[in-house]
Amino acid sequence: MKKINIGLIGYGFMGRTHSNAFRQAPVFFKHGHQPVLKAVCGRNAEQAQAFAQNWGYESVETDWRKLIARSDIDLIDIATPNNLHFEMAIEAAKAGKMVMCEKPLAMNAAEAEQMVSAVEKAKVPNMVWYNYRRVPAVTLAKQLIDQGKLGKIFHYRAKFLQDWTINADVPQGGTGTWRLDASVSGSGVTGDLLAHCIDTAMWLNGGIDTVTAATETFVKERKHAVTGKMQEVKIDDASAVLARFTNGSLATFESTRYARGHKALYTFEINGENASIFWDLHDLHRLQYFDYRDASVTRGWRSIHVSDGDQPYMKNWWVPGLQIGYEHTFTHQFADFVAGLDEGKNAAPDFRDGLKTDYVTDAILRSAQSGRWENAKGRA
Amino acid sequence: MKKINIGLIGYGFMGRTHSNAFRQAPVFFKHGHQPVLKAVCGRNAEQAQAFAQNWGYESVETDWRKLIARSDIDLIDIATPNNLHFEMAIEAAKAGKMVMCEKPLAMNAAEAEQMVSAVEKAKVPNMVWYNYRRVPAVTLAKQLIDQGKLGKIFHYRAKFLQDWTINADVPQGGTGTWRLDASVSGSGVTGDLLAHCIDTAMWLNGGIDTVTAATETFVKERKHAVTGKMQEVKIDDASAVLARFTNGSLATFESTRYARGHKALYTFEINGENASIFWDLHDLHRLQYFDYRDASVTRGWRSIHVSDGDQPYMKNWWVPGLQIGYEHTFTHQFADFVAGLDEGKNAAPDFRDGLKTDYVTDAILRSAQSGRWENAKGRA
Amino acid sequence: MKKINIGLIGYGFMGRTHSNAFRQAPVFFKHGHQPVLKAVCGRNAEQAQAFAQNWGYESVETDWRKLIARSDIDLIDIATPNNLHFEMAIEAAKAGKMVMCEKPLAMNAAEAEQMVSAVEKAKVPNMVWYNYRRVPAVTLAKQLIDQGKLGKIFHYRAKFLQDWTINADVPQGGTGTWRLDASVSGSGVTGDLLAHCIDTAMWLNGGIDTVTAATETFVKERKHAVTGKMQEVKIDDASAVLARFTNGSLATFESTRYARGHKALYTFEINGENASIFWDLHDLHRLQYFDYRDASVTRGWRSIHVSDGDQPYMKNWWVPGLQIGYEHTFTHQFADFVAGLDEGKNAAPDFRDGLKTDYVTDAILRSAQSGRWENAKGRA
Amino acid sequence: MKKINIGLIGYGFMGRTHSNAFRQAPVFFKHGHQPVLKAVCGRNAEQAQAFAQNWGYESVETDWRKLIARSDIDLIDIATPNNLHFEMAIEAAKAGKMVMCEKPLAMNAAEAEQMVSAVEKAKVPNMVWYNYRRVPAVTLAKQLIDQGKLGKIFHYRAKFLQDWTINADVPQGGTGTWRLDASVSGSGVTGDLLAHCIDTAMWLNGGIDTVTAATETFVKERKHAVTGKMQEVKIDDASAVLARFTNGSLATFESTRYARGHKALYTFEINGENASIFWDLHDLHRLQYFDYRDASVTRGWRSIHVSDGDQPYMKNWWVPGLQIGYEHTFTHQFADFVAGLDEGKNAAPDFRDGLKTDYVTDAILRSAQSGRWENAKGRA
Repeated sequence: MKKINIGLIGYGFMGRTHSNAFRQAPVFFKHGHQPVLKAVCGRNAEQAQAFAQNWGYESVETDWRKLIARSDIDLIDIATPNNLHFEMAIEAAKAGKMVMCEKPLAMNAAEAEQMVSAVEKAKVPNMVWYNYRRVPAVTLAKQLIDQGKLGKIFHYRAKFLQDWTINADVPQGGTGTWRLDASVSGSGVTGDLLAHCIDTAMWLNGGIDTVTAATETFVKERKHAVTGKMQEVKIDDASAVLARFTNGSLATFESTRYARGHKALYTFEINGENASIFWDLHDLHRLQYFDYRDASVTRGWRSIHVSDGDQPYMKNWWVPGLQIGYEHTFTHQFADFVAGLDEGKNAAPDFRDGLKTDYVTDAILRSAQSGRWENAKGRA
Repeated sequence: MKKINIGLIGYGFMGRTHSNAFRQAPVFFKHGHQPVLKAVCGRNAEQAQAFAQNWGYESVETDWRKLIARSDIDLIDIATPNNLHFEMAIEAAKAGKMVMCEKPLAMNAAEAEQMVSAVEKAKVPNMVWYNYRRVPAVTLAKQLIDQGKLGKIFHYRAKFLQDWTINADVPQGGTGTWRLDASVSGSGVTGDLLAHCIDTAMWLNGGIDTVTAATETFVKERKHAVTGKMQEVKIDDASAVLARFTNGSLATFESTRYARGHKALYTFEINGENASIFWDLHDLHRLQYFDYRDASVTRGWRSIHVSDGDQPYMKNWWVPGLQIGYEHTFTHQFADFVAGLDEGKNAAPDFRDGLKTDYVTDAILRSAQSGRWENAKGRA
Repeated sequence: MKKINIGLIGYGFMGRTHSNAFRQAPVFFKHGHQPVLKAVCGRNAEQAQAFAQNWGYESVETDWRKLIARSDIDLIDIATPNNLHFEMAIEAAKAGKMVMCEKPLAMNAAEAEQMVSAVEKAKVPNMVWYNYRRVPAVTLAKQLIDQGKLGKIFHYRAKFLQDWTINADVPQGGTGTWRLDASVSGSGVTGDLLAHCIDTAMWLNGGIDTVTAATETFVKERKHAVTGKMQEVKIDDASAVLARFTNGSLATFESTRYARGHKALYTFEINGENASIFWDLHDLHRLQYFDYRDASVTRGWRSIHVSDGDQPYMKNWWVPGLQIGYEHTFTHQFADFVAGLDEGKNAAPDFRDGLKTDYVTDAILRSAQSGRWENAKGRA
Repeated sequence: MKKINIGLIGYGFMGRTHSNAFRQAPVFFKHGHQPVLKAVCGRNAEQAQAFAQNWGYESVETDWRKLIARSDIDLIDIATPNNLHFEMAIEAAKAGKMVMCEKPLAMNAAEAEQMVSAVEKAKVPNMVWYNYRRVPAVTLAKQLIDQGKLGKIFHYRAKFLQDWTINADVPQGGTGTWRLDASVSGSGVTGDLLAHCIDTAMWLNGGIDTVTAATETFVKERKHAVTGKMQEVKIDDASAVLARFTNGSLATFESTRYARGHKALYTFEINGENASIFWDLHDLHRLQYFDYRDASVTRGWRSIHVSDGDQPYMKNWWVPGLQIGYEHTFTHQFADFVAGLDEGKNAAPDFRDGLKTDYVTDAILRSAQSGRWENAKGRA
């Protein structure tokens, strides 16, 4: 059993989900590498210390460059706001560390291209935390598509709807609200929520060629949590997209933080010649499946409770009928990363996959400016 | 095209649903007999006249014996409160009229036995309006069971839940509330709601051998709408039942008017060795179907939108995806009654079927008194 | 009680839904005008005769100009394929008849403008059969919005999905499939399905300023039912749209006949500052409603079973909990038209409303060609 | 921070859920005691060793009496088949250990009474693992009831449906199938599944006075996994119950392992004067709530996604909209047990609560024999 000494940067929401994955994955999934929670790094020493104690990290750093420089660290996991991914990933790769990075990979595709170059040059294992691929129901969707169950695909539609920024008093910048500060997040819902939709979509349905889009910023000014000043909001509050896939299918995508009633409603639907699939994060343990080949009088959408041992990941958990939750997607992704190490290959999505998503989200933001269809397969 | 001259007794809620059926059935279902709305009978001449004018009845009577005596009437349709069914049906049969009767057939099985004798002796076509058999989804359930799709049946469970009598100010007796006056209704929810569950259950799953039951009257006294006095409530407000079918399956039944949030929630579920079925009146156009023979990873409850031309009754209506409603069940039942006339046989359920249901509901009420299992296949 | 002598042109699917409305409306809704089914007109005399006999029309015509010329006809109802609406409506208006026309109003906005001029010049009552406004749940949505329950609107999303043309053997042209022949239908799903979405959307959420769109024709050639030849398909099989409303809200629209598993899934959702609404034609008797002002721990989407007497149109039907269906929307619309006659005003949507929808659908089709945002408030 | 040295007996399914709780609770819930996974005990030393290594237990025992005798053990957690609970719990209490025991508490109420005496005499903290109380949605239901939101309760209905023993080739006895061997399990679904329903019901709705019941054994003989012989099946495959609560409400309960299509469908519904509640284990993160006090036109069942910080337990997990799963119920229960230690009181349900449930399940089994209503508040 080889050890993987992990150095985590960032102790926020994602630092928590990753840490839980590091703890749980080896208990439920057996592979040849054993993670060791070696160090956590954060600017505030006291908070980092508390985090380390809670999650079982052996040590603490407050300077991420020092963490990367440590010879006892094998893997750098980046769980910081988006504007820090670039430098950290480049430095980690240069130091020969494996790199795992929160999504989106970068502030934009230009940064992401350099990050891909860095990890590929360094030949270090790398991964981007698009965790929703590892919801068992979503993985099952992938399997059904790969088995050809759907036939030719006509339509893809996805949306990721939230409602937490409707109140104009929500600030921009600072802890918990840095996603509203474009200088930290790069973009609004396009990079945050829509990027998840795009990652899943390209995994399930192949590349996206072109997009046209509209974005909107409903609340024009918000107080900045750091400066204390009322400042222009530069992120996109909402993003709506039409897209054409390489396989000829037509798509709609939408994300917003102004959809009252939806906390984190990520849904996608795929319509094929023979079958269709629907999934919904609010009921993540179910997959809706319609198969036209069923006898006509009893044909209907099947609500599949994805909790059986022959369904993805589930034999490692409990018994049929007993559902798992959100956090397990990270556990699965880390378990797959470790399995990849055993086999000497990256678990998807790797940095190159993450770059492709950045090409699409950049094209969306460009189109929102130009009012035209934009190429989504590379930089402008 | 032979004419059937209809004489309707009663112009309340059921008088309306039947009248609509008489008008609509010949437009949508083609058979060899043509209904003629010949006369409507009600105590209040003015209201009867208004009803006749609205629905297109040619004439009006205020004495039901006169209606039955009329030589231009072929069929008597009884849509009155329960305490009048007995005498009207007996007289109609004696006069050689076809008889259709609202459910439950009678105040009790003793009455019902005589009604069966009367129509069978007179050899007149007869039918009881247990309309829910003719919801397309319910008829589809029957077809699936008859095709053997479910295999051996283990469980049947049904309930009919309402909430309209929770308010203690709802009176008993009088128009609209006669169902709370036991002297008019015979029983409470057992004869009103549970009788529907029992009729459907025996149609789908065969005879019921024995039952044990509990009933409850939550509001002990209510003002009587006719007498104006506060009087003891003698109906059952709620009824809960365990039953054993002849085929060995075990059942639960429940009905109440105290289930807050349910207006008319009639549901049933049947669990067989190979497949299960669920239906719900609040979404009557859907049938839920689970087939264990589906491939294991994509097995799930299918939500069948029963609106296609190859599904029961639907080719006579609109196009796939467009649902029909409650009133159509009466239209279907009357269309089937007419089809039966063409073929010289009764459409089910006939009076004999209605009697069997009365045996069960009587046994339920007996068990609620005795605290023991009671025979449900005949009179005590 | 004034009589309205109706002359119906077309005895297909829509001829049936309208005829049912003419028969049922006066039974369930009391107004000062009484429809008389005076004549039905169709090219095939035998079929027209059979239709007349079934539905109770007094007479038959095979030449629509003769029908319009008849002095005993007050109202012309156009239920023909789209390419005939223009000439029929213009002539009917010239003859001083009231005009009701199936949707979409015309082949394009250019035609529709002339039709509006004709009815407005003739000052004849006029209406377009966008029937879905009269689903009780949809009318309830309108009431809630008009009461201000939603507050500022951020998002509107609607789709109308079918799957009946996936099979490449479905022909174009001819009875039942004329909607695939662009010379008869004007367009594909944009004018057929999306037009419904646009009509409802502008009713609920106000005018649409600009759109960008993509259309797709998945099956490029189909046999023509009339010519018997394989011919290029010129309609849009699918249509996807981004739109901006005058009130600042952002919208997505989509319609297709290639969404396996959906027979007629028309859904819309509106997200407002304080509340959101969702509706689905496949369960048309329900309205989903989320109100942020509910206490936080018990906040959730409410599934409203729209069947109570205080909900739109329902007091005229049965009792709470018992649903109505698709056909009733036409009955409601005709009842409202008649109510409008009583009051001397058009029931919405009138021809001018229908024209506005044609502006939007034309803009969608233009944008699908140009790849740019197009003005949706008038002609190009 | 005080340490609690845990000795776990049993390394099966429940041994896993408990162990996960011991590991996760201190990370997510902060209390004054820290669990230490001191030892796991099982008959097979190799398997026990593997279990210990995986979950982080410091040591292994193969004789449970030795485990109980160890002075470095503070708490005995019993996760063995039912026939071992009695002796182990008694011995643990005698040794002054805290005791946690899997449900049902005992083979029958006679055993359970002695177990209660033992822990109460020893004054040791004790708890029974009826984990479903700690589903956040279920705890929320409890809070709403305790706040009086429902008003007077009229009805309670619950069922726990599975389908895993329909196949007659499933053996009785042995690992994984000991629940079918009455000498090990005590009873079939009554003690296994219905006991959960009863525990929740009495927690939410108070005591049960009387019951009448029917049980059924559909497969009469099964091969015994240990003896290899075909033997009579002595457990109840299905159990159906009518019950009366002390508060006057009427109830139905049902459990079975022959409900095709249901893996672990535990549902309950409570109908009160003012509001109703429904919950379903297959979608455990949702609570359905109907409040009659909502404005009538927008009244409907609310689907509450129980994942917000102000809902039970959820502020300790992730962010709104992101659901947790089955395993977390054990984590919550252990966290509450530890909180109870801080405060010097038992977390519910304790052994006395577990005994009350055994009184009810015993009465159910008696009634299934006697055919009569049985007292459920004590021993026969």
